[in-house]
Amino acid sequence: MRALWLENRAITIRDNVPIPSPPSGEALIQIRLAGVCGTDLELMDGYYPFRGILGHEFVGKVAESQDDPSWIGKRVVGGINAACGACENCNAGLPSHCERRTVLGIVDRHGAFAEYLTLPVINLHEVPASIPDETAVFTEPLAAALEIQEQVQIHPEDHVLLIGAGCLGQLIAQTLIPIGCHLQVVARYETQRALLDARNIITITEDAVPSRKMDVVIEASGSPGGLELALEAVRPRGTIVLKSTYKGMLEIDSSSIVVNEIKLVGSRCGPFKPALSLFEKGEVDPIPLIAKRYPLSHGLRALRHAAWPGVLKILLKP
Amino acid sequence: MRALWLENRAITIRDNVPIPSPPSGEALIQIRLAGVCGTDLELMDGYYPFRGILGHEFVGKVAESQDDPSWIGKRVVGGINAACGACENCNAGLPSHCERRTVLGIVDRHGAFAEYLTLPVINLHEVPASIPDETAVFTEPLAAALEIQEQVQIHPEDHVLLIGAGCLGQLIAQTLIPIGCHLQVVARYETQRALLDARNIITITEDAVPSRKMDVVIEASGSPGGLELALEAVRPRGTIVLKSTYKGMLEIDSSSIVVNEIKLVGSRCGPFKPALSLFEKGEVDPIPLIAKRYPLSHGLRALRHAAWPGVLKILLKP
Repeated sequence: MRALWLENRAITIRDNVPIPSPPSGEALIQIRLAGVCGTDLELMDGYYPFRGILGHEFVGKVAESQDDPSWIGKRVVGGINAACGACENCNAGLPSHCERRTVLGIVDRHGAFAEYLTLPVINLHEVPASIPDETAVFTEPLAAALEIQEQVQIHPEDHVLLIGAGCLGQLIAQTLIPIGCHLQVVARYETQRALLDARNIITITEDAVPSRKMDVVIEASGSPGGLELALEAVRPRGTIVLKSTYKGMLEIDSSSIVVNEIKLVGSRCGPFKPALSLFEKGEVDPIPLIAKRYPLSHGLRALRHAAWPGVLKILLKP
Repeated sequence: MRALWLENRAITIRDNVPIPSPPSGEALIQIRLAGVCGTDLELMDGYYPFRGILGHEFVGKVAESQDDPSWIGKRVVGGINAACGACENCNAGLPSHCERRTVLGIVDRHGAFAEYLTLPVINLHEVPASIPDETAVFTEPLAAALEIQEQVQIHPEDHVLLIGAGCLGQLIAQTLIPIGCHLQVVARYETQRALLDARNIITITEDAVPSRKMDVVIEASGSPGGLELALEAVRPRGTIVLKSTYKGMLEIDSSSIVVNEIKLVGSRCGPFKPALSLFEKGEVDPIPLIAKRYPLSHGLRALRHAAWPGVLKILLKP
């Protein structure tokens, strides 16, 4: 099969990667559509020493499922953390923090920029018929957006600053609308602002962020300067949610965290079921976030495009 | 009066500083005993550009109180944050985060290493007769220790790592005993370990800290390496409480906060009333933490002694 292969920070298209053979408990999934995420670009940049097929956002169709054949033929999305089911974290009900986990296209598991992938059946979620592929492929990032509200309670009277209006930021913004909180979004690019304007979400520039006034700041810019801005914007005893990972070490003013008694919460993958439910009800619409669709054979060009400043979602079709 | 004066990172004893004249709403307090804190040493090191009389841990006797003469003659301790009472944070019930606050011996307010100080009457707490001066002088650091439990709920089944067994660490350890949690303390010095051993508190070395197992890690070492150790020790979705301030910027692995969904909580000053209550009931005993008492006239030697590795509380008597 064809796949986008990362090795020693070099990405290549390989045309004769063997179709994977699912181990016990796993299904073989034929990819219908995959999405490029900032993490893919960071992996190419050496954020984590991954070797193999990139990609973790996908919608596909189950081609093989020996342990549970009822999955065969179903359209699915899948949680990206494959857990051992036996370690301390798995036993504590935290499979996404499994100590021996592999992570689709990120840690020791081939990903979705290919024609097929395998995932544990337990990770799969059937996509309701009313959700088109181009929406379903956003399930993983929408789940990551929803993780914020799993961890931090945001109240209608809260002043919330969202830093970053890329794809994840746009999805986060859409999930915050129903709360009715006072939301402002730091958006760097005109395309990002236009999408938020269309939903009557207030955008501001970095310079206009008020000092120490925000109850909650969500840093989803993917830029190391984002946390610095968040520390400046959050009120004493306020909360910063950190969604972005950065390569290497980050310099922070830890004294301001102590003196202002800030709570800083790291936030990663989230729940798929509520994400699918929001798509089904039409409460979140990711379609306007699609910047361009590429065939997998043009994958190298697609990844270059995804790295352009301000570009939103790039999709890959095998 | 005599006072220890900090200016341009140089500390001197001045013998003819005028006795302060309390402004409206404030009392004049004659210092009976003051304690040296790590923050005093950091201020001498330029952590914050303070100029004036150092010191914020004290017990004293009210000498003047024009607005409320009922305070005169009472033995008191006092909250160190003097708030404006009118700003947004004051109105939100967070006077210790007042935007215009002065802080005793730290920000724009002369401190306790002197014969007298002034503080707003609203900051004062009468010391019950059963609490001796040498205990009462620990009220401020014990309150800071209790702030942890104001911010984070620690459960009896939690595995808690306390990094740092200096004076603050020792007080924190004592406040955690009644919870019945599984507490381990990273203590660097033999004197620190002996005090914890005497209370049957388990001590470990840095090398023996297990990786990613702790539900709660409290960093109170005052050393920048402490946060790194905390990030290594905390379990996924666990909590780090940051009590230490460090001069300058700190390098952290922010990705581990995101990937492991860590909650990092800054923690500063705490409530005086419960601190006095614990002293009154004898549930916390700070007396063994006293390393040495100096007369204020030997203040320079006292501050040098306080900077020795592993030394606990140095007291100053005017």
